[in-house]
Amino acid sequence: MSFEVGVLAYPAGSCLVSFGNTKVLCAASIEEGVPPFIEQEGEGWLTAEYAMLPASVPEGRKRRERDSRAVEIQRFIGRSLRAALDRTRLGPYTIVIDCDVLQADGGTRTAAISGGWVALYQALEKLAELHGVEGPEYFLAGQVAAVSVGIVEGQLVADLDFAHDLAAQVDMNVVMCDDRLVEVQGNGEKGAFTREELDAMLDLAAQEIGLIYEAQRAALGLA
Amino acid sequence: MSFEVGVLAYPAGSCLVSFGNTKVLCAASIEEGVPPFIEQEGEGWLTAEYAMLPASVPEGRKRRERDSRAVEIQRFIGRSLRAALDRTRLGPYTIVIDCDVLQADGGTRTAAISGGWVALYQALEKLAELHGVEGPEYFLAGQVAAVSVGIVEGQLVADLDFAHDLAAQVDMNVVMCDDRLVEVQGNGEKGAFTREELDAMLDLAAQEIGLIYEAQRAALGLA
Amino acid sequence: MSFEVGVLAYPAGSCLVSFGNTKVLCAASIEEGVPPFIEQEGEGWLTAEYAMLPASVPEGRKRRERDSRAVEIQRFIGRSLRAALDRTRLGPYTIVIDCDVLQADGGTRTAAISGGWVALYQALEKLAELHGVEGPEYFLAGQVAAVSVGIVEGQLVADLDFAHDLAAQVDMNVVMCDDRLVEVQGNGEKGAFTREELDAMLDLAAQEIGLIYEAQRAALGLA
Amino acid sequence: MSFEVGVLAYPAGSCLVSFGNTKVLCAASIEEGVPPFIEQEGEGWLTAEYAMLPASVPEGRKRRERDSRAVEIQRFIGRSLRAALDRTRLGPYTIVIDCDVLQADGGTRTAAISGGWVALYQALEKLAELHGVEGPEYFLAGQVAAVSVGIVEGQLVADLDFAHDLAAQVDMNVVMCDDRLVEVQGNGEKGAFTREELDAMLDLAAQEIGLIYEAQRAALGLA
Amino acid sequence: MSFEVGVLAYPAGSCLVSFGNTKVLCAASIEEGVPPFIEQEGEGWLTAEYAMLPASVPEGRKRRERDSRAVEIQRFIGRSLRAALDRTRLGPYTIVIDCDVLQADGGTRTAAISGGWVALYQALEKLAELHGVEGPEYFLAGQVAAVSVGIVEGQLVADLDFAHDLAAQVDMNVVMCDDRLVEVQGNGEKGAFTREELDAMLDLAAQEIGLIYEAQRAALGLA
Amino acid sequence: MSFEVGVLAYPAGSCLVSFGNTKVLCAASIEEGVPPFIEQEGEGWLTAEYAMLPASVPEGRKRRERDSRAVEIQRFIGRSLRAALDRTRLGPYTIVIDCDVLQADGGTRTAAISGGWVALYQALEKLAELHGVEGPEYFLAGQVAAVSVGIVEGQLVADLDFAHDLAAQVDMNVVMCDDRLVEVQGNGEKGAFTREELDAMLDLAAQEIGLIYEAQRAALGLA
Repeated sequence: MSFEVGVLAYPAGSCLVSFGNTKVLCAASIEEGVPPFIEQEGEGWLTAEYAMLPASVPEGRKRRERDSRAVEIQRFIGRSLRAALDRTRLGPYTIVIDCDVLQADGGTRTAAISGGWVALYQALEKLAELHGVEGPEYFLAGQVAAVSVGIVEGQLVADLDFAHDLAAQVDMNVVMCDDRLVEVQGNGEKGAFTREELDAMLDLAAQEIGLIYEAQRAALGLA
Repeated sequence: MSFEVGVLAYPAGSCLVSFGNTKVLCAASIEEGVPPFIEQEGEGWLTAEYAMLPASVPEGRKRRERDSRAVEIQRFIGRSLRAALDRTRLGPYTIVIDCDVLQADGGTRTAAISGGWVALYQALEKLAELHGVEGPEYFLAGQVAAVSVGIVEGQLVADLDFAHDLAAQVDMNVVMCDDRLVEVQGNGEKGAFTREELDAMLDLAAQEIGLIYEAQRAALGLA
Repeated sequence: MSFEVGVLAYPAGSCLVSFGNTKVLCAASIEEGVPPFIEQEGEGWLTAEYAMLPASVPEGRKRRERDSRAVEIQRFIGRSLRAALDRTRLGPYTIVIDCDVLQADGGTRTAAISGGWVALYQALEKLAELHGVEGPEYFLAGQVAAVSVGIVEGQLVADLDFAHDLAAQVDMNVVMCDDRLVEVQGNGEKGAFTREELDAMLDLAAQEIGLIYEAQRAALGLA
Repeated sequence: MSFEVGVLAYPAGSCLVSFGNTKVLCAASIEEGVPPFIEQEGEGWLTAEYAMLPASVPEGRKRRERDSRAVEIQRFIGRSLRAALDRTRLGPYTIVIDCDVLQADGGTRTAAISGGWVALYQALEKLAELHGVEGPEYFLAGQVAAVSVGIVEGQLVADLDFAHDLAAQVDMNVVMCDDRLVEVQGNGEKGAFTREELDAMLDLAAQEIGLIYEAQRAALGLA
Repeated sequence: MSFEVGVLAYPAGSCLVSFGNTKVLCAASIEEGVPPFIEQEGEGWLTAEYAMLPASVPEGRKRRERDSRAVEIQRFIGRSLRAALDRTRLGPYTIVIDCDVLQADGGTRTAAISGGWVALYQALEKLAELHGVEGPEYFLAGQVAAVSVGIVEGQLVADLDFAHDLAAQVDMNVVMCDDRLVEVQGNGEKGAFTREELDAMLDLAAQEIGLIYEAQRAALGLA
Repeated sequence: MSFEVGVLAYPAGSCLVSFGNTKVLCAASIEEGVPPFIEQEGEGWLTAEYAMLPASVPEGRKRRERDSRAVEIQRFIGRSLRAALDRTRLGPYTIVIDCDVLQADGGTRTAAISGGWVALYQALEKLAELHGVEGPEYFLAGQVAAVSVGIVEGQLVADLDFAHDLAAQVDMNVVMCDDRLVEVQGNGEKGAFTREELDAMLDLAAQEIGLIYEAQRAALGLA
């Protein structure tokens, strides 16, 4: 697991995140204005876009079209990262987090959220300078990271790679903001699961997310 | 909460489900063949489609276009109902569950899953006759129902209606198949939540789903 | 033939119309503003949308896409119902008539027009209250109903059902507003027809429309 | 009114038809195969496409997009010209009639039908040679022409041009095949009409169509 | 090679250009306003649209869809004709050049540019009257014409027709404005070419364009 | 200028090319089968896709939609790289070259062609192993590279960056295969150019391409 910051010259924040063979390029851009449905609230907004490069997948080239799965994933990323933000302090700006998967070996959406938070942090540094406030913490509601966990052949597994993903009876994405839960998405289409199994997956997820928090902070040079 | 079965003349199964003011018309059709990506497995398939009528919403007419939110919801319905099915026994058929929302007052997706299972059961009765097997149980992996729960102004609430939905800090959709979990989708974009809150929501969901199981069976004339 | 009024909670008017096995759910919504092409005229507007639920058809599930046939039908419905309206008195409002076919056994467009008029009448009642005018008659130019007639195996037939529809040499849709004609659409692709046959079809249509007028008024509780 | 035949080098038939200022270029192409929905019948097919060049309209350049009005018109042209054809004798071929409006001053759809029949006749000559049958009459069910009539300021008018079209209270398109009616499309959205007015419009249409029949035959060098 | 001017009644300029069997109908329309990306510059704009009629091609009917090749060609036509224009003098107008191919036997894009210049000249005459300036020369930066040249079986060829086009090892489109080059597009996918071959093609192109200049001026009645 | 090879794990070839601030990720994938229009020729095919990441541009985030400019560019890349290939020896395979712009500072299409050739070379190494032929040279028709040159404020310039690009009176893309020309695309919309200027631009392009050839070979470890 690694986070490389500042890899792109033009956007306000950027981060290349690697989780095993999975590599996602995250960029945070600041745009003026907010979408119409949020206008009256007087707050800012954050949205995400997610796409996979055609040559990113092991099983043969993927077509370049926007599929509904990508839209579902980017809504998930957007919701998760909005939880990191105090939108009432953002002003009339929209932060766009572009997550482009360069290489996909499972867990791309959780890598995107974790890397997206790093790019967002950088963008908030720029915004803080611009607005003359103390630092990015002014806009931040917390630190966000995500992990995928699952049950494969009866065993708990974190960070499912592509091979594990196919074999998983249950797979679950967990997003946390500091020590609270933001999203829990568990799916047992291939084998329903018990409350005990759910509890064990959530424990493992919390532990893994702790490690990701440390790596995010190290990459940003935070204590 | 009510389930009215056999409301349409042509599809193999149909059910008009009402949860408070929410009304969803569910139809189950049997089509020959399966999608290409499932062909080699020698199993059957189930897919769902979800749409809202323009005049179904309280806040003014909704445009008739297919939005990505509808696609996300119908994937959720499809995954949930596939958990009810032993696809290895289905043969080369696809069951399509059409869920059309006539009136929407919150919880349309969980109403659709609960009503969809009733329509599916009827369609499996037809399929059982056709194939000369004992009954729909031959194809069934379990009884599926769903409920939405949430935290509104610090209180646990089941069956969120539209007004509650907007005010909810956390909302969670829970799908069960018999006494196991199939999907858990909790989202705290407007206020992250603790493990204790998650546990309380899951307890409430299980209790509500027990009541829905009874209503489904009564509508189908099952013991 | 039956008209059930007020079946939906949210739109200004609604009507479930049944002609034999054909069932169409009609809803009338009032929206502020008019389309750009009508803006300068200072009048109101009425438009219609028509769609079939996938499970509404006898011959297997219909795909959910908007086809050009639906667009042609909804233009026909819109033109017909605009004839019922004194648009100069409507003010800057657009009335949208949504016609969703729940079950289709022939004659869905004429059922939609006849049921649409009932939903429109209800919506005009709401509009009259809102504007403090005497009643819906203030906005009405007349009562509109429609019927399909045809020649099947040399015999005149009214209210063609699906089986008759396929076998018809000539089929004709007739829309009237009070005792005048609004639309006459006769099509003899499978067998051109004579002036005498046209006259006989129009006589039959006028007679049937008289019966529909009575049923519409009864459903609305009018003398 | 004029019909100029053979104006294009490549298609099987072609005709430039002028009705006043209206000019439509009609081309008939013969393609192997028939659409899937007609395949089992063992007959041939005819379909039409209709489009307007952007610079064809008086009121400023028209955008090049395919609108639903064009689709409705081309279905009308297709139905009308199929009535001219004995499809059981055509064999597994589809004749495509392309109608491109070079200049539009009202009545483009009826001009397209009348000119389309001339292009069709030429294509059937080619097909007759190809199949070694006596002549185009082998495939023909009759001569087809069309005219638009209407009521403008209380007066009966034939061949409505653009100015008349806007002012018409009633406008009606009439298509005939020999001395029988194929399509009657009367529309009184701006003023419903009586049976007597309908009769007068049909009389006028029949008279005008007689003149068009003569011009079509002259252009093709028929007696 | 021929240029027939004024063939359409409504647009500001029009020209039917024939190069061998290739026939392109060019129309120039004047619209108020300019595209958003040019607004700040205070200049006018010129854009082109290019399409082929379905029956225009020798090898069987072409589908009516807008393909990316047409878009590439119309950008090429637009760039070429903008070189003919002093956009600083045009004012806030957009000139649209519609190029519709009636018959295609190679070289349609160069025919469209050459004919498009003639239609443009006519439109500028109208604009000059409107603005009370001396004549079209006020807006003109020069005379534009285009030709395609190539190497077929080792021989230099001008005005490639369809058969030559397929066999060409190299084909090159050359556009000139007076005695300068505007566009040079040479493509040797089927056989790369030398600098000497490039020089010979450019010499031939310049010579051919001289002849086209004369024909354009003759058609417009210029000395 | 640098070429980094093998940067992606899954495709057959990959190369990250940097020209100044411009960075393009090129991937070469081998797919079975060829497009329908090439099937009868018994040869292989090569096609390219080109896209820009939203955060790749200096002037603010670019929308993710496929525009016609991207399609024009990818056709240009495809044509250029097909000239490098002896398609008669390729067998029934399609090589897809994906060119994704990570950062754009001018000259992205020429960078993509030059980097695409490196990725292609690697893919041909894999194909040679697979087919048991001596090496990639078996399939290669030559070494391909591209450069953009132009005239900016009267001065010849190579490798136009974004600032130069906007200011250029003439810009020209030149593609060579060994010592022959493959594509010459010169465009003087903002200022037509003379034959002498064309000659000077071609001389400069040939010189720059020589340097790129050396860098490509060094990256691949070729003598």
